[in-house]
Amino acid sequence: MKKKDYTPMWKGLGIDIEAHNGLLKFLGKAYADIYLSQENRPKGMEYLDFVITEIHGLRIEELLEAKKGGRKVIGTFCLYVPEEIILAAGGVCVGLCAGADIGTSQAEQVLPRNTCALIKSFVGYKLARLCPYVEACDLVIGETTCDGKKKAYEIFNDLKPTFVMELPQTKSTAARALWRSEIDRLTAKIEEVTGKEITADSLRGAVNLVNAKRKALHRLSALRRAKPSPISGRDALLVNQIQFYDDPVRFTEKINSLCDELEERVKGAIGVTPADAPRILVSGCPMAAPNWKVPFIIEKNGAVIVAEESCVGERGIRNLVDEEGSTREEILDRIADRYIQIDCACFTPNAERLDHVLEMARDYGVDGVVHYAIQFCTPYAIEAHKVAKALEGEDIPLLKIETDYSVEDVAQLETRVEAFLEMLKDRRKQQ
Amino acid sequence: MKKKDYTPMWKGLGIDIEAHNGLLKFLGKAYADIYLSQENRPKGMEYLDFVITEIHGLRIEELLEAKKGGRKVIGTFCLYVPEEIILAAGGVCVGLCAGADIGTSQAEQVLPRNTCALIKSFVGYKLARLCPYVEACDLVIGETTCDGKKKAYEIFNDLKPTFVMELPQTKSTAARALWRSEIDRLTAKIEEVTGKEITADSLRGAVNLVNAKRKALHRLSALRRAKPSPISGRDALLVNQIQFYDDPVRFTEKINSLCDELEERVKGAIGVTPADAPRILVSGCPMAAPNWKVPFIIEKNGAVIVAEESCVGERGIRNLVDEEGSTREEILDRIADRYIQIDCACFTPNAERLDHVLEMARDYGVDGVVHYAIQFCTPYAIEAHKVAKALEGEDIPLLKIETDYSVEDVAQLETRVEAFLEMLKDRRKQQ
Repeated sequence: MKKKDYTPMWKGLGIDIEAHNGLLKFLGKAYADIYLSQENRPKGMEYLDFVITEIHGLRIEELLEAKKGGRKVIGTFCLYVPEEIILAAGGVCVGLCAGADIGTSQAEQVLPRNTCALIKSFVGYKLARLCPYVEACDLVIGETTCDGKKKAYEIFNDLKPTFVMELPQTKSTAARALWRSEIDRLTAKIEEVTGKEITADSLRGAVNLVNAKRKALHRLSALRRAKPSPISGRDALLVNQIQFYDDPVRFTEKINSLCDELEERVKGAIGVTPADAPRILVSGCPMAAPNWKVPFIIEKNGAVIVAEESCVGERGIRNLVDEEGSTREEILDRIADRYIQIDCACFTPNAERLDHVLEMARDYGVDGVVHYAIQFCTPYAIEAHKVAKALEGEDIPLLKIETDYSVEDVAQLETRVEAFLEMLKDRRKQQ
Repeated sequence: MKKKDYTPMWKGLGIDIEAHNGLLKFLGKAYADIYLSQENRPKGMEYLDFVITEIHGLRIEELLEAKKGGRKVIGTFCLYVPEEIILAAGGVCVGLCAGADIGTSQAEQVLPRNTCALIKSFVGYKLARLCPYVEACDLVIGETTCDGKKKAYEIFNDLKPTFVMELPQTKSTAARALWRSEIDRLTAKIEEVTGKEITADSLRGAVNLVNAKRKALHRLSALRRAKPSPISGRDALLVNQIQFYDDPVRFTEKINSLCDELEERVKGAIGVTPADAPRILVSGCPMAAPNWKVPFIIEKNGAVIVAEESCVGERGIRNLVDEEGSTREEILDRIADRYIQIDCACFTPNAERLDHVLEMARDYGVDGVVHYAIQFCTPYAIEAHKVAKALEGEDIPLLKIETDYSVEDVAQLETRVEAFLEMLKDRRKQQ
């Protein structure tokens, strides 16, 4: 079947066609190398392969169709922005965090060079006119999670109007009250942009829908506790990345099917790596698609990533919204409560995260932890010190990686990862 | 007169005597080069010279005397922490932000290398046992102004118990409510530590006292509008730095005397530089003592700094607390209102700062602006883009500097500053 030509659609969105073709070619090659080269992949991953192939094609077409039908497309950069509120107003929610070394030179015209790669990437995508998602958005929503994003949104706002939610920095009663009022402010804004009233019923439906998506992802996580793991860390990461783009109902159905298959694999003790492959927990910064560099390095050196303590991973999906609320205000209360539970390093103190890292290391039977910080991500880079102390207390080996989206340090990272994995294997032999 | 030997006092505070002697020697030399080498200094600066000479000696002795008398010493890192509340409980408030490349290797054991120099310096001073102020403190108070400080306080707290105030990131009604509740939390904490009740009367006295200090500094600022400026930027910066350490009553009296002298100078058109020296506004990050690098480079190349749009400068002292409140709650309301007005780049949006930069450039008759960002200070480094756009709109020349506390880039900075000043002189000729 000949692939559809989306050029007219991209042109309509103002995309730089030539540069975009180059980007797609580059991403296709990277995906083939990192994903399609894997052996013994679950069959259910075919759907994810399809989604990736069509990520700037069919999915964008769907968004534009939705817009024609009167729905609004809302872009977000962070999992503190409640998808439920957007869905409750009939909106489509898409994640705009970006994981490629794209538009970096353009981004560095307006941002300091020592800004984290994730921020440079989303600003760069916009300036280079390479992201059909951001162009399709009727509104984008930022949040005050870190200095870099908080201040970059002020500049981004000149490129695309950006509504910024204030996330507090502690979990005190007063901070929760501020957060609760921000949930109201978002609700009003979404109602204004969509022209739809958000009701208890529409909220309840959205809560159930997003909870169902999270439950499917919980199933996937639980299956990765098996030894050997039935799925690679790369593939599981991809699932977690795609959740920010795909239609939530379809996605949930497909992930549940994938989990059915993985259950069979677990019963038959079928893994993607030999049973004795070192099991790794990756902890730290989010890996937005197509940021696959570190997982690829870890897994191609013979280890398997069995869990991500990350925004694109368990930090993002761990908690459900309590489904008990009946009035609109009660449901919004529960949404506020759910989201402020997330244990991002932007909070101080953030002891819950340390507890979760240890709990996950135990529950997933990991041999070691790779702490992943995007270079210049101050909250995670500094919190790494506390994570290291916590892991040391439990005698769990740790490798701290700080990197960006470029390929310049790949050889150096390979050497460090290889040495770390060797050390883990030696420890096992001694145990 | 033989200088007093403070070694026993420093030993009692746990200071590393040998390293501390080295530090004092180094600082003495730097002070002689940067300050005492100046010609035509106001006579009133002798007091400041004396304070600097005794900054780790007599002033620490005073703090220890105050402690013996039952007063508590409270350390702060940021001008968002209201000194009035500390004074109202009979406390002594000292600034702990640090401006020297000291203890950096120790700091980098617990903090990422790409942490800003100010943070590395205060953590380094503590780890290297070189700061008698922090050792003399009964309590230190942090605040959530930036990612670096917010997360570094968690580590600092393990070295010295640190009470952290949550500063919001916007100036919305809900954010103000959070801030107001943090003022109450601080008040309760200070009452607990000092064992003294904070009353409307004691608060009123403290408000008047700190306002008087600010008014003296306003006088100093206003005098620098004169052409030629009667005082160097270095000396004025020193005054602004010393306000964080000195006894506020004595300091106010001395600065008013200095201003009396400067008034005479202005009447006689006596300046510290030739009347045609380029007039510079420095805008950006705080310069904590002894961070004199950039001002020294600017002034030794023939310019004069006439104002600082900085925490250690006009941003820090611009606003007074409204003295009208009569009850304790009313006065605390006014304190909260005064402090949240400060236009640090940690707020989003922060349009007030852009207005202030333009207003100051006009009011002080400057030829150009030097934007000063400490390397890795994300809020100011990103906001520099907006500052640049605002200045461009008014055709005011700008030099952006991003540096740390080391001397490694001095030659490079000299070259850039020299070229900037030449350009300013050329512009003048053409006007």
